[in-house]
Amino acid sequence: MSEVTRTLARYLVGSRFTDIPQAVKHEAARALLNWAGCAIGSSHHETVECALAALADFSGPPQAGLLGRRERMDILHAALLNGISSHVLDFDDTHARAVHPSAPVLPAILALAEWRRFSGEELVHAFVLGVEAECRVGLAVFPEHYERGWHITGTAGVFGAAAAAGKLLNLNEQQMTWALGIAATQSSGLREMFGSMCKSYHPGHAAHDGLTAALLAARNFTSSERGIEAPRGWGHVLSTKFDPTKITAELGQRFELMSNMYKPFACGLVVHATIDACIQLRNEHKLEPDAIASVELVVCPIVMELTAITDPQTGLEGKFSIFHAAAAAIVFGAGGEAQFSDAALRDPRVVALRQRITAVPDPQLRKIAARVNVRMHDGRTLTKHVADALGTLARPMSDADLEAKCRGLTDGIISPSQTDELIRLCWSIAALPDAGAIARAAVPAA
Amino acid sequence: MSEVTRTLARYLVGSRFTDIPQAVKHEAARALLNWAGCAIGSSHHETVECALAALADFSGPPQAGLLGRRERMDILHAALLNGISSHVLDFDDTHARAVHPSAPVLPAILALAEWRRFSGEELVHAFVLGVEAECRVGLAVFPEHYERGWHITGTAGVFGAAAAAGKLLNLNEQQMTWALGIAATQSSGLREMFGSMCKSYHPGHAAHDGLTAALLAARNFTSSERGIEAPRGWGHVLSTKFDPTKITAELGQRFELMSNMYKPFACGLVVHATIDACIQLRNEHKLEPDAIASVELVVCPIVMELTAITDPQTGLEGKFSIFHAAAAAIVFGAGGEAQFSDAALRDPRVVALRQRITAVPDPQLRKIAARVNVRMHDGRTLTKHVADALGTLARPMSDADLEAKCRGLTDGIISPSQTDELIRLCWSIAALPDAGAIARAAVPAA
Repeated sequence: MSEVTRTLARYLVGSRFTDIPQAVKHEAARALLNWAGCAIGSSHHETVECALAALADFSGPPQAGLLGRRERMDILHAALLNGISSHVLDFDDTHARAVHPSAPVLPAILALAEWRRFSGEELVHAFVLGVEAECRVGLAVFPEHYERGWHITGTAGVFGAAAAAGKLLNLNEQQMTWALGIAATQSSGLREMFGSMCKSYHPGHAAHDGLTAALLAARNFTSSERGIEAPRGWGHVLSTKFDPTKITAELGQRFELMSNMYKPFACGLVVHATIDACIQLRNEHKLEPDAIASVELVVCPIVMELTAITDPQTGLEGKFSIFHAAAAAIVFGAGGEAQFSDAALRDPRVVALRQRITAVPDPQLRKIAARVNVRMHDGRTLTKHVADALGTLARPMSDADLEAKCRGLTDGIISPSQTDELIRLCWSIAALPDAGAIARAAVPAA
Repeated sequence: MSEVTRTLARYLVGSRFTDIPQAVKHEAARALLNWAGCAIGSSHHETVECALAALADFSGPPQAGLLGRRERMDILHAALLNGISSHVLDFDDTHARAVHPSAPVLPAILALAEWRRFSGEELVHAFVLGVEAECRVGLAVFPEHYERGWHITGTAGVFGAAAAAGKLLNLNEQQMTWALGIAATQSSGLREMFGSMCKSYHPGHAAHDGLTAALLAARNFTSSERGIEAPRGWGHVLSTKFDPTKITAELGQRFELMSNMYKPFACGLVVHATIDACIQLRNEHKLEPDAIASVELVVCPIVMELTAITDPQTGLEGKFSIFHAAAAAIVFGAGGEAQFSDAALRDPRVVALRQRITAVPDPQLRKIAARVNVRMHDGRTLTKHVADALGTLARPMSDADLEAKCRGLTDGIISPSQTDELIRLCWSIAALPDAGAIARAAVPAA
């Protein structure tokens, strides 16, 4: 395989919007909606405030907005800051086997679209191609690269941002080859940083550096033309496994965006099946917490390892308590950020129910499965088995689910009517004459 | 070794200027002079022009200057652009076993000093500590890290910029620990890029990202506290060898800046001993090219592999022609950029002499050694043996040599009287109330 980088570049440059199947375009709209909700919902998180305070003095002209905020910055800083807010709640989308696709890509190209007025069609096209690039590069080294300690959303994400921004900038094949090379030599991000503010910095940094790569290449800034596949290129230096066919096979025939997943609940994936089962039981039986004698959660053993905090004291601890997650799901019928707030942790109904919940491991269950047995004071036992948690590829969130998630995230930051408008714009993105409308819809009223 | 990152941070934070030996301070002034000359000399190079054209639209307020130019940018962009120009001619300083020390560090802290007015003493102190950090981190993984394909000036340089900028920003121990972690997770740069514009982008990117790391840490942006040494930290992820004692042993007792070297000639190291010998012969015997019948160069075999172009057509090819380098050294008595210009390549005296020069390999000679035998038309044979080329640690460039190199580099960009002033400021850097004077002295007249 002698021309991996160039082959990918040639595909990206040659792709036409009409080559993208309708289902992929709709998935792009779903990803956009999910991403916008996440970025708005996290827009005042401590991590974002901290980065903004550190960097505001150095911003250029107000070319692009920060989602969920009134500040505007130059497009590179906007890409960085929106990239951070995309990921800080760990609530953004996930490719089945590689990166969080939207967080490094959409911040880069939405900023560019705001500044240079690109259409919604151009944005969708660039996004689909950026996701293709980052996922394929990631799949070429997965899982060894990740196991070695690289945070693949940062290290592969930078290729996605470069490819997508390069598409909007109308790079030619040579320039796109350079853009991918400049991305390769900026690729960074260590899993060691998980648990610190740096984790969400990674997609922001990838968005910033990928956008920079495309801008440089547009001016004929050169790089190696074999940045990905050379013996000392990205694949071999950052991984012990490198399969270039994962990058070049079936380009334009299958789309990695179709393997994208959205998280319905604001916590780790291993907790999702339990929350899902509890909400289903609640809704089907109109459960009242006071009517419940006890709840037994039957879960994959890994759940007991990761989320066994019985008496969580903070919202963050609540995300690592399967007991709290189940109690909140039954009380509130949801598993969003609000259900993991400090207030929800202290809610007397939640605390009381939590104390009546136990969990047992079952090695037969996968981590996206769970069984919940509710024993009622009236003697009945209600049971729900979830084989594939909501949000997995086998049971994707519906468009309505995604709307509801977005409303939950934007609540209190932009008005409900603004959220309605944002949702409308996302569903009609491919028809918008100016994709920057998405960013403008995400600015809170003064 | 459980606390490598924190131990280094503690040293950086605790160090006082009075702890730095006088010889180290003088070496800092030498490095500053050499760096300023390189950055000014390359300030209008195509690579710099290209990056500036791509990024100028996004610059913030004019907080810091670009050496050798009239443009001013925000400090992050100034660090990036000056970092590129520092290295683009491959004429900047070299640590004996690791990085090019000045290029990632000085652009970051000179920009910061211009913006926030730090004294020359503070700049020198921060610079010495930055070099210490980047060299020690580099030495911990050298040479395996480099052999794997990492451009260590980028990957380790970012630690130097973070440490030095963090010292100026007066970070506390916790913040400095985070700054080093944020640097670790931004570390990047592939040797695959050598030969393209990306090579000099690496120290620029390191200066930019290291400065960003310090600015973020100053606002309490968190990272792993074991970013360098953790099992999934920088050392283990980016190298198969990691020796943390190289980072923590004898902190404050030896200074890596004392192993810094400066290149007298604007070409690869393997050519230096030959140029050196030719200039010595020329000066000692007042050689006139016309009086020379033939010249025999006796060189390390690697010289014949790398620089055997007999009839170079461009300045760049001239750098890979031992014949041209020797001829130009005898004709002009120098080996600067001017001697590798297209004009020098075509100079009739150089062309004529070049055709009378031969080279033979001698496996006994190291690559920093050479023997030159000149046969004169009058029958005499003149010989010069150079065991250690000028610029190596065994035979360092004198202060006067560095001044002459700087004058050669700045010629035609800033005026001779400005260069005089710049040189004076560099020698007196530690006494300057405002280190930004260095940057101001490097601005060409309108």
